[in-house]
Amino acid sequence: MRIILIGYGVVGQGLTNILLRRRLENLKDYGFNPKIVAIVDRGGAAINPKGLNLEKMLTLKKHNGTVAADREFGHAQMSPLSVIESTEAEVIVEATPTNVKNGEPGLSHIKTAFKTGKHVVTTNKGPLALALPALMELADYNKVYLRFSGTVGGGTPVLELAKKCLAGDKIVAIRGILNGTTNYILTEMAEKRITFQQALDSAQKLGYAETDPSMDVDGIDPACKVVIMANWIMNKKLTLKDVKVKGIRDVTLQALEEAAKRGNTIKLIGSIDDSAEVAPTEISKHDPLCVSGVLNAVTFVSEFAGEETLIGRGAGGMETASAVLRDLLDIKYNLASKMLT
Amino acid sequence: MRIILIGYGVVGQGLTNILLRRRLENLKDYGFNPKIVAIVDRGGAAINPKGLNLEKMLTLKKHNGTVAADREFGHAQMSPLSVIESTEAEVIVEATPTNVKNGEPGLSHIKTAFKTGKHVVTTNKGPLALALPALMELADYNKVYLRFSGTVGGGTPVLELAKKCLAGDKIVAIRGILNGTTNYILTEMAEKRITFQQALDSAQKLGYAETDPSMDVDGIDPACKVVIMANWIMNKKLTLKDVKVKGIRDVTLQALEEAAKRGNTIKLIGSIDDSAEVAPTEISKHDPLCVSGVLNAVTFVSEFAGEETLIGRGAGGMETASAVLRDLLDIKYNLASKMLT
Repeated sequence: MRIILIGYGVVGQGLTNILLRRRLENLKDYGFNPKIVAIVDRGGAAINPKGLNLEKMLTLKKHNGTVAADREFGHAQMSPLSVIESTEAEVIVEATPTNVKNGEPGLSHIKTAFKTGKHVVTTNKGPLALALPALMELADYNKVYLRFSGTVGGGTPVLELAKKCLAGDKIVAIRGILNGTTNYILTEMAEKRITFQQALDSAQKLGYAETDPSMDVDGIDPACKVVIMANWIMNKKLTLKDVKVKGIRDVTLQALEEAAKRGNTIKLIGSIDDSAEVAPTEISKHDPLCVSGVLNAVTFVSEFAGEETLIGRGAGGMETASAVLRDLLDIKYNLASKMLT
Repeated sequence: MRIILIGYGVVGQGLTNILLRRRLENLKDYGFNPKIVAIVDRGGAAINPKGLNLEKMLTLKKHNGTVAADREFGHAQMSPLSVIESTEAEVIVEATPTNVKNGEPGLSHIKTAFKTGKHVVTTNKGPLALALPALMELADYNKVYLRFSGTVGGGTPVLELAKKCLAGDKIVAIRGILNGTTNYILTEMAEKRITFQQALDSAQKLGYAETDPSMDVDGIDPACKVVIMANWIMNKKLTLKDVKVKGIRDVTLQALEEAAKRGNTIKLIGSIDDSAEVAPTEISKHDPLCVSGVLNAVTFVSEFAGEETLIGRGAGGMETASAVLRDLLDIKYNLASKMLT
């Protein structure tokens, strides 16, 4: 399987690290022979149809800031789109940053991959939040696969649990803590009795929150995940504009303390049933969903199996890269099954 | 798919209920056409090669105590073994009660099914705890499938999460609260400040604990689940005698209160890493594993994806029956893939 990797940040580097560590191990069990033929970052591209040397790519990125510095295979300033168009490969891994305004540049990367007959694995929530129903159709039309396990829960297999582990059952509702930054802030506020601003400062100091924290604290990131789960798991044709979103800026210490008196606390909950919503919500401290710190948690309400809650870290380069690997294996497996029919 | 159902208690009846409810719905999506051709209970059997009327079976069980009361298809006193041997079917669902002394009668049911070329789905922990490595080999030898999702976590897809959702990763350790009865008792002791005996009485009154509670409180039930996970998920060839087991009879209110002072509590934890063990263990109240009441929880420690914790009810007839349905679909799917090769 020849792979083009677009975006070489923590997830992209995590993927190359995993592939290096796994090369001699159990990936063979899956008849999976991954070869990264191109990597594109902000500085340009490195391309080798025979497969790039991944140790070298990691070193170049670390010391030169870009893989385009490779003397033999580097192409400074070469654009992702021209790499996708001109390089032979079966799959692109799209791991550029999320942009919920217009989904770019990820959206164009994905569409161009489809047009040139390439499967897509992405960790980029932007294009999915804005256009998942259309992208799923476009993938079908081009007879390629679109996978995005790393967009919800990081390495925690939230989407897979719902899709692969409840056959014959029916998921009728989903609710979850889908954003680690806001969960950290709310946990800090409740436990240390500090204000939203104090907790946000602490999150920013620790690197849990961005300088512009609005994607998290205004609920946009969890809303993207709601869109992805609604489409993929519950077959609802939603996009970001269909989700009612309220962030945590207005959650007061007083409200948290009053909730505590009732044995409850306030969490930023994304929910999907008849409607799709993200809002600060009072829940019982005994609810399995009630996790603290940067953890994420999702409860699936199913018709027969009852309620299942999956908890894990919702982020991390290596963790999210492990979700990319699972998607690559899933595509490999599906292709192998199809060849047999 | 023709199915023989051995044991017609809450799980068996749950399965017939689910099949009735799903008949006109999404099971068709899986190309799955289940037909129960025989049901065996303590009173005998009902057999119809064309498929039994499941509404009628439920009614007979309720009003007559046995499906053998069926005038047309009933066979009073007919033994499970002769039904398995003489009835044509692809799969048996073995749902008789667990017996950890010698695994019977489940063990003979399973072996006889294998010998006559039938796949087995079981919810019976006894045969697996005593002989899972041998049974897995025997299934391979007879070219049939053995599935047992309902034995761990009831309807919560614990085994499936580990097997299907972490491809390319490696589970290096497992720990979990694997028994709802003992978790209820420990939760009650800690929250209501009562003794073990008082909490056990309460559990028995509510039907959470048996009159002879030793399977639960002495840790045997969770030890069976440790054996099943160790074999199925981590490929360790263990049986019950290899698990170090300590129950909760000696957990005192004082120990719980001292743990609470440290922000912790005591739970009955089953763990698998280099060794396999069940023992009362002090864990942090912030650990996602720390669930209350009758809930079960399992944490998988994986090499790349980090730690994932799955929480759900660990029991229930309908819930466990939904796990049986998943196993039937899994066998169906595997058979379909095999036909293509």
